[in-house]
Amino acid sequence: MDRNGRDDIKVENGYDLEDDHDHKKKDKKEEQEEEFSVERKFENQEVPSWRNQLTLRAFVLSFVLSILFTVIVMKLNLTTGIIPSLNVSAGLLGFFFIKTWTKFLEKSGLLKQPFTRQENTVIQTCVVASSGIAFNGGFGHYLLGMSETVARQSTEDSDAFKNPSLSWMIGFLFVVSFLGLFSVVPLRKVMIIDFKLTYPSGTATAYLINSFHTPAGAKLAKKQVKALGKFLSFSFLWGFFQWFYTAGDGCGFAEFPSLGLKAYENKFFFDFSATYVGVGMICPYIINISVLLGGILSWGLMWPLIDTKKGDWYSADLKPSSLHGLQGYKVFIAIALILGDGLYTFFKVLSRTLAALFFQLQMRDATGGLPIADRSSPETSRISYNDQRRTQLFLKDQIPTWFAVAGYVAIAAISTATLPHIFPELKWYYISVIYIFAPALAFCNAYGCGHTDWSLASTYGKLAIFIIRPQERIPPSNGASHGGVLAGLAACGVMMNIVATASDLSQDFKTGYLTLSSPRSMFVSQLIGTAMGCIISPCVFWLFFKAFKDLGTPGSQYPAPNATVFRNMAILGVEGFSSLPKNCLYLCYGFFGAAILINLIKDALGKKWARFIPNPMAMAIPFYIGSYFAIDMCVGSLILFIWEKIDKAKADAFGPAVASGLICGDGIWTLPRAILALAGVKPPICMKFLSRGTNAKVDAFLGS
Amino acid sequence: MDRNGRDDIKVENGYDLEDDHDHKKKDKKEEQEEEFSVERKFENQEVPSWRNQLTLRAFVLSFVLSILFTVIVMKLNLTTGIIPSLNVSAGLLGFFFIKTWTKFLEKSGLLKQPFTRQENTVIQTCVVASSGIAFNGGFGHYLLGMSETVARQSTEDSDAFKNPSLSWMIGFLFVVSFLGLFSVVPLRKVMIIDFKLTYPSGTATAYLINSFHTPAGAKLAKKQVKALGKFLSFSFLWGFFQWFYTAGDGCGFAEFPSLGLKAYENKFFFDFSATYVGVGMICPYIINISVLLGGILSWGLMWPLIDTKKGDWYSADLKPSSLHGLQGYKVFIAIALILGDGLYTFFKVLSRTLAALFFQLQMRDATGGLPIADRSSPETSRISYNDQRRTQLFLKDQIPTWFAVAGYVAIAAISTATLPHIFPELKWYYISVIYIFAPALAFCNAYGCGHTDWSLASTYGKLAIFIIRPQERIPPSNGASHGGVLAGLAACGVMMNIVATASDLSQDFKTGYLTLSSPRSMFVSQLIGTAMGCIISPCVFWLFFKAFKDLGTPGSQYPAPNATVFRNMAILGVEGFSSLPKNCLYLCYGFFGAAILINLIKDALGKKWARFIPNPMAMAIPFYIGSYFAIDMCVGSLILFIWEKIDKAKADAFGPAVASGLICGDGIWTLPRAILALAGVKPPICMKFLSRGTNAKVDAFLGS
Repeated sequence: MDRNGRDDIKVENGYDLEDDHDHKKKDKKEEQEEEFSVERKFENQEVPSWRNQLTLRAFVLSFVLSILFTVIVMKLNLTTGIIPSLNVSAGLLGFFFIKTWTKFLEKSGLLKQPFTRQENTVIQTCVVASSGIAFNGGFGHYLLGMSETVARQSTEDSDAFKNPSLSWMIGFLFVVSFLGLFSVVPLRKVMIIDFKLTYPSGTATAYLINSFHTPAGAKLAKKQVKALGKFLSFSFLWGFFQWFYTAGDGCGFAEFPSLGLKAYENKFFFDFSATYVGVGMICPYIINISVLLGGILSWGLMWPLIDTKKGDWYSADLKPSSLHGLQGYKVFIAIALILGDGLYTFFKVLSRTLAALFFQLQMRDATGGLPIADRSSPETSRISYNDQRRTQLFLKDQIPTWFAVAGYVAIAAISTATLPHIFPELKWYYISVIYIFAPALAFCNAYGCGHTDWSLASTYGKLAIFIIRPQERIPPSNGASHGGVLAGLAACGVMMNIVATASDLSQDFKTGYLTLSSPRSMFVSQLIGTAMGCIISPCVFWLFFKAFKDLGTPGSQYPAPNATVFRNMAILGVEGFSSLPKNCLYLCYGFFGAAILINLIKDALGKKWARFIPNPMAMAIPFYIGSYFAIDMCVGSLILFIWEKIDKAKADAFGPAVASGLICGDGIWTLPRAILALAGVKPPICMKFLSRGTNAKVDAFLGS
Repeated sequence: MDRNGRDDIKVENGYDLEDDHDHKKKDKKEEQEEEFSVERKFENQEVPSWRNQLTLRAFVLSFVLSILFTVIVMKLNLTTGIIPSLNVSAGLLGFFFIKTWTKFLEKSGLLKQPFTRQENTVIQTCVVASSGIAFNGGFGHYLLGMSETVARQSTEDSDAFKNPSLSWMIGFLFVVSFLGLFSVVPLRKVMIIDFKLTYPSGTATAYLINSFHTPAGAKLAKKQVKALGKFLSFSFLWGFFQWFYTAGDGCGFAEFPSLGLKAYENKFFFDFSATYVGVGMICPYIINISVLLGGILSWGLMWPLIDTKKGDWYSADLKPSSLHGLQGYKVFIAIALILGDGLYTFFKVLSRTLAALFFQLQMRDATGGLPIADRSSPETSRISYNDQRRTQLFLKDQIPTWFAVAGYVAIAAISTATLPHIFPELKWYYISVIYIFAPALAFCNAYGCGHTDWSLASTYGKLAIFIIRPQERIPPSNGASHGGVLAGLAACGVMMNIVATASDLSQDFKTGYLTLSSPRSMFVSQLIGTAMGCIISPCVFWLFFKAFKDLGTPGSQYPAPNATVFRNMAILGVEGFSSLPKNCLYLCYGFFGAAILINLIKDALGKKWARFIPNPMAMAIPFYIGSYFAIDMCVGSLILFIWEKIDKAKADAFGPAVASGLICGDGIWTLPRAILALAGVKPPICMKFLSRGTNAKVDAFLGS
C-alpha cells in the first residue's frame, strides 16, 4: 500500500528487508551519482508556499485513491494478511491522474497552478496515511478478533465478543489515530536534520517522485502507467470472469485442484488469484520461498502426522475448527513462530536504536548541536547544495511545539474519556498509563524505522495484549474471564495506532525533506489522510463484513488468519497455556526457539548467505490457512525470474507496474463483487471439482 | 495436412481459396523476382539420380510423420471435419529431422549422402500421400457412415450397416487407392510441361522446400521450428492437463460454459481446444466468420425457432437424435447447403476446366506440340534457365506408358474381383463401369486442380452416392432397401480415392518439377506413401474406434458430423425425400438455392468485395454440431489479427508455425490419450459445471 504501511506489515508478516535494502543501496548509489544535481535540476522551479502545496484536487484524488488502496489492503488483510508494497502504484496513479488533469486544463487554458513534486508528495502522504488505517485499524486482526464469528471458533471465552459496527469503529479510530502524529512532530528536526536518519522507504518514495518530475522520468512513468493499466484491466476482467463460476461453496477457479485432489485436500493448489501472483512479483524471492516452505512443512508434513495422533493427543470427536484439536496446533504453532521472530526483531531493533541514539546524542553534544553528517554519507561536501536547500526549506515552515503538545494532551484526554465507553473492559487509568508512555514508544519506533526501515507497530501491539491482560481481568461471573480478551485486543489497537502513525509521519517528513515539501503541508496532509482513513476504512470493512457473511471463518474465502491469531494470543494471555492440546506446548517451545535460532543464524552469516535463510514469520502464515496463496506467489516469483532472465532492464522497470496492475485490478473487482453480494445478485454457474467416484454418484443422482 | 489433401478437404468443407490465392499471387510475385536465380543458386549442386533420391532415412521419417499427421487428420475428421493445411508443419518437421540427423552424421563423419531438396520433396510427397488416405479413406464420412452407431441414429435403413474392422478396411483401401496414380502418370508431361498448369499448392510447397535449402531459408526454418516446438509442447501439456479433469461425461474444459449456461445449451462456448485455435489461425478469416455466422444462424436462431414447433411440425416424443425430429432439420439443411455449394463449384470448375482444355489443345496443335508459355507468365524469357533445366530433368526419367496402363488394368481387375466380396451390395459390373470412366474423371480433377487448386474429390464422391444408388437397390426383403445405402457409400469411397490420388500426384509432379526431383522418384514415393497410408490410417482409426466408444454419436467428443451427413445423403438417394420431417424439404430447397445464390453473388462481385461474402459450405458445418469450434477458430483468428496489427512480418513468418505447433501438440496428445483409454486408465477428477439451483441440490445430496 505505501512505504510506511508496508514496513509495518512487513514486520507483521515477517518481511525481510535485507534483500530490499541491498537493492535500495545499489539503487541509491546510482541515484546519488545523479543526486548531485537533483536540486540543481529543480533550481529554477519555484517551490510553492505550504498552503499552495495543499490543493483541493490533491485531496479529491487522494480520497479516490484511498478508497482504492483501502479496498486492496482490506482484501489482503482478510485473505492472508500479506500486504506488499504498493507505493509504486500509488505513486504512478497519483502522478498519472493529476498530470492528465493538469494537461487537460493546460490545453483548455484553465490551468492556474502547475503540478509540482510537492503536491505529488502531499497526495502520496495523504493516501499513505489513509490506507495505513486499513491495516493499523486492525480489521484483519485485533478488531475482527473481537467479533462473534472468530470468538465462536474457540471454546475459551467464546462469549467475550464485540461485533463490529460502523459507529464504534469510526469513533475508536478517531480517538486513537491522531496521537502518534502529535507525538513525533516536535522531534522532526532532530530526526531528519540532526540525526540525518535514512528512512529508506521514505527516501525511495522521494526519489520516485523527484524522478517523475524530470522529463525522462515522466516518459518512463507514462509507459509504466500503460503497463499498469493493461494488467489492471486484465486482472479486473479475470476476476469478473471467475465470479460467474462461484455459485456455491467450493465452486470456481479459487478451488481448482490444479495439483490433484490429494494435494488440494492439503491446501496445495493454484487458486488463480491475480492478486497473489502480483504480490509474489513484488515480494523478495526468499519470502515467497519461505511461505512455500512453511506450507510444505505444515500441511505437507506436520498436520498429516499430527492427524494420525487423533484420539491420542486430542479427542477424535471435536469439531474441525476446535482449538483443542488439530486447529489448535495450527494456530498456536504459528503464534509461537510469529512471537519468536517478532521478539527477536524487537530486541534487535531496540538495542540498535538505543545504541545509535546514545552515539548520536554524544556526537551532537560534541559538535554543539550543528548538523552532523551521517556516518554512511561521505559525500557531505558534494551534496551540500542539495542539503543546504533542503534544510533551508525544511526549517522555513515551523510547527510550534506548544501546538503539538497541546494537541497531544487534548486528544489523549478525549480518548481516555471515550474509550471506556466503547470498551468497558478497558479502564480509564490503564489508558492513561498507555498515553504517558506512548510518546516514548512512538519516538522509539520512528527512530528505529529511520535506521532499519522496520516499523515494529504490530509487535508493540502484541506486547500490549500480554501486558494489559492480567490487570484487566474482570471478576469472573460465570467462571470465565471474558473481559481480558477484549481489553487485550483493544489495548493492542491503541498501541498499534500510536506507534504506526508516528513512524508513518516521520517517513513522510523525510520524503518531504527530499522533495522540498513543507513539514507543515506534510503534517496537514497526514492529518487529513488519517481523518479520511478513519471513515473510509470502517466503511470498506463494513462492506466486506456485510457482503461476505463468512468473514473470519477458516476455509472460507476470507479466513482473516491474523484475526484468529490475535484473538488466540489474547486468550493465551488470559488463560495461560491451559487451552493448548496435548504436546502442543512443547511444539510451540520448539518453534519459538527455532524462530530465534533461524534469526541468529541469519545475523551470524554474511549478507551473501543470509539471503538464503528463510524467514520464520513468512513461514508461519500458511501454517494456519494453507499454502495455496504460496503457490500463487511462487508463480509470481517464477514469472519475474523468467522475465529477469530474458530482459533484466525491462523486468526491473515494469515488473512493479505489472504486479501493481494485477493487484489493483483484482482489488477493484472486489468492490463491485461486494456490491453484487450485498444486492443479492448471485453468480449463475458453479464450477465444481469432484473425484471420479463422487461424480458417478452425482450423475446418477441428477439422472434420476 | 498437406497441399493436396487440404484442397480436397477444402472443397469438402467449403474452404474458399480466393483469399489464399490472392495471398499466393502476391507471394508468388515476390518469389518470382527471386526466382530468376533459383536454379542458378542451386547450379553447383549435383542432382542425385532418382534412385538416390529415394533414401531409406526419408521413408523411415515419412513413416513417423505419417503416423503423426494421420492421427491429427483423424482427430479433425472425427470432431468437425475441418482440416486446415498442415503442409508448413510437415515441411518444417521433415526438414528439421533429416537436417538434425545429417548434421549429427556429418559431425561423426558417417555422412554418406547429403540432404538434398529432392530428398525433402520425396519425404513431403510420401507424407502427403500417406496422410491423404486418412481423409480419402472416409473414416470421417463414408466408412464411418456405414457403422452401426451412425446407422442406429436414423430410423431409415438402420439395419443396413457394416461395422469397421481392420481387415476389410485395409483390403478396401489397397484395392482402390492405387488406381488414381496409374491413371495420371501418362499425362504428366502434358499437364506440367505442355500446359504449364500452375498447381498453386504444389508450387507453394516447392518454394518452401527450395527456400529451406538456401542458407537464409534454413535459418528462418530453424526459428520457425523452434516456435513450432514451443507451441507443440505447450499444446501437448495443455491437452494432458485438461485430461485430468474429464472423469465423466460433461466434465472438463471442453464443456466450459464460458459464455454462460444458456449459450452453452445452444453450443456456444469456448472449448479450450488448442487444435481449433490453431486451425482458426491457418484458415482465412472469412472461413472462420462463415462458420460463426452459420452457428449463429442455426443454433442461435433457427433451431430454437423450429423447437417451438415441436408437436406441430414433428412429434414431441421422438428421441433427440431421431432424424424425424429437430435432428432431421439440422442434418438435411446442412446437406442442402453443402450440396448447393458443391454442385455450383463442380459446374464452375468443370466449365472452366473444359474451356481451358479446349483452348490449350487448340494452341498446342497450332504450335506443333512445343511447350508454350502459360498466358499468365509474361516472364518466359527471363526464367528460361530455370525452365530449361527443370524441363530437362523432368523429362530425363521416364515412366513408360505401357507400365502405367498395365498397372491400371491389373489393379482394376483385382479391385473388381475383390470389392463385391467386401460389399456384396456393390456388384462387379457397376465397379467396372466406374473404372472405365474413372481415368477421365481423374484427369478432369487433376487438370481442374492444376488451374484452380481445387480438388473436387468429395464432390465426385457425393455424386457417386446418388448415381450408384438406384441401380444397386437390392430386392427389399423386409420392405426396406438396405443395400442401397451401403452400396452408395462404398461407391463414394471408390470414386473419391481415385480422383483424389490423381490430383495429389499431379501436385507432386509439379513440386518435383520445381525442385528438380525425378518424376520416377515422385511416383515411387507416392506409391510407398499410399501403401503406408493404407495400413496406418485404418490402424489409427481402429485405435480411436476402440478407445472412444461413442465415436459418431452426436454431442459426444467425436461426433464425426460428416459421417451422419454422408449416410443421410445415401438415405436420401435411396428413400427419396420421404424421410424428411415436415417443412424440412422447403427449408432445404431454400438453403440449396441460397448456397447457389451466395456463390453467384460472390462471383459477380469484384475480388475486392467477394472476400466479404461468407462461404456456404463453411456455414453448414456448425448446423449439425454446434458452434463451439467456431468460437475456438475465431479466437485463433483474433490472435492472428492482433499479432498482424502488432508485427505483420513476424506474424506472417511465424503464424503458420505457431498454429501448426498448437495443432500438432494437441494431436500428439490424442495418441497417449487413446492408449490410456484403451488401458482403462481413467482421469481422477471431474470439473463439472452446474447451475446454481442444481448445485444447491447436489450439495444437499453430497452433504446427506
